[in-house]
Amino acid sequence: MRDRRPGPVTRTRVTEFADGNERQREDRLVTEEPLEIRLAWPGRAAERVWVTMRTPGNDFDLVAGWIAHEGMGPVSRIAYCTDADLAPDQEFNVVTATLERAPAALPQQHASVTAGSSACGVCGRDSVLAAAPDPRLAWTGPAPHPDVVRQLPNALRERQRLFDHTGGVHAAGLADADGNLLVVREDVGRHNAVDKVTGARILAGDSPAEAALVVSGRAGFELVQKALAAGIGTMISVGAPTSLAVDLARTGGLSLYGFTSAERAVRYTD
Amino acid sequence: MRDRRPGPVTRTRVTEFADGNERQREDRLVTEEPLEIRLAWPGRAAERVWVTMRTPGNDFDLVAGWIAHEGMGPVSRIAYCTDADLAPDQEFNVVTATLERAPAALPQQHASVTAGSSACGVCGRDSVLAAAPDPRLAWTGPAPHPDVVRQLPNALRERQRLFDHTGGVHAAGLADADGNLLVVREDVGRHNAVDKVTGARILAGDSPAEAALVVSGRAGFELVQKALAAGIGTMISVGAPTSLAVDLARTGGLSLYGFTSAERAVRYTD
Repeated sequence: MRDRRPGPVTRTRVTEFADGNERQREDRLVTEEPLEIRLAWPGRAAERVWVTMRTPGNDFDLVAGWIAHEGMGPVSRIAYCTDADLAPDQEFNVVTATLERAPAALPQQHASVTAGSSACGVCGRDSVLAAAPDPRLAWTGPAPHPDVVRQLPNALRERQRLFDHTGGVHAAGLADADGNLLVVREDVGRHNAVDKVTGARILAGDSPAEAALVVSGRAGFELVQKALAAGIGTMISVGAPTSLAVDLARTGGLSLYGFTSAERAVRYTD
Repeated sequence: MRDRRPGPVTRTRVTEFADGNERQREDRLVTEEPLEIRLAWPGRAAERVWVTMRTPGNDFDLVAGWIAHEGMGPVSRIAYCTDADLAPDQEFNVVTATLERAPAALPQQHASVTAGSSACGVCGRDSVLAAAPDPRLAWTGPAPHPDVVRQLPNALRERQRLFDHTGGVHAAGLADADGNLLVVREDVGRHNAVDKVTGARILAGDSPAEAALVVSGRAGFELVQKALAAGIGTMISVGAPTSLAVDLARTGGLSLYGFTSAERAVRYTD
């Protein structure tokens, strides 16, 4: 029986138009598929709690990191689902994680459908900032020097193999204070890429709380939230940060750089 | 009483590092704030159904477009919420829309928290494709020529004023088959930018089903889904499409271009 696991790259035929010419060729696309996460814990059977569109590959990293960022760890077991009711093309799109104990609460996504409530629990900058995660293991070591910070996007770029093939994928990497990249992950969703690096560290038995997290795109609120939850010291983005990302970084004590390249870096926190 | 409406640009102090020098300066960030959408219809009082992180401005466009893309229109009224229980900084982050009639179903987000169910309703490429929207008003006019397609990203870029200020924002625009941009909107979230252009057309009394939708970033599954729901003929992205975006465009009959610039354009559909 052939492995039905979806790969991170999908081949397809395309038509390219350039300078009045038209030609058929093969192209490679980054794969985007849904991943369903089911959670179980002692006394409760697995139930679906989240679905994300993601690039297949390192799925267990993604799940372990997502659980850690949501404050629900530790995890005792992660496995693909083999329910009899799943179609063959779906069995690698469903992951079941077993928590060591019941979580205090299931995650409330900011972008979720929460029909049935009229209470405004998440609206307003202040209430978002008040909900800043409080990591138990925060980085207390040295911060990377600005010269090291400026080298990290290029170092990350050199390890973005999926980007080389498809051009349509984000990356995240964890680095020590000297600029050595410890782990790099890619995904069509930038939040997934960050989940994957945290999860990779956890599944390898290492702490996700490191000196620096470098991301290939912009720094939105959600990524800063994950960095704080993981206990990261400095977050470095290639693109622009948003207003709420800066506010949350300042509130949570995360050092935040944006517009980072070999030529320059802009720090948004003191 | 001063207007507490949040603006699309937020000023802040930053430290820039370049070539061994370090200087303090002012910077402008794109504003990112939560928007809560409440829905009411005859016989039902307003309840929260969705929260999205968005850039303030054209909020009613966003809400009208989101409702249309979710197949819940038409809308009889859209207003900011003035609940007594809202803090002053929140009143422009909550919008109530009144539908003309009860929707067939409330939207099920693919990335939503749906605790309490173990049925896999959205997993697998096939089930996602089977859920492709079926627009009542689809574009039947001419398609833009590839030469016109290649001009649209630059035309869009010239109207991205928020990007000029902050560098961290997506844009979407609707164009006719001759390449004339009819409406452009910007937002920190690319899905919000697409909601805003559809909503702007609807609130102006025009059909959102037009020849071309051009987007500043990549073409993910979710954007293709919105373009199909709005009845767009051709979607043009500056960046890469994903595998699921291409599959969904082919299934739904949407013409899809990626990696589009003045020099070239790649068409992923026949």
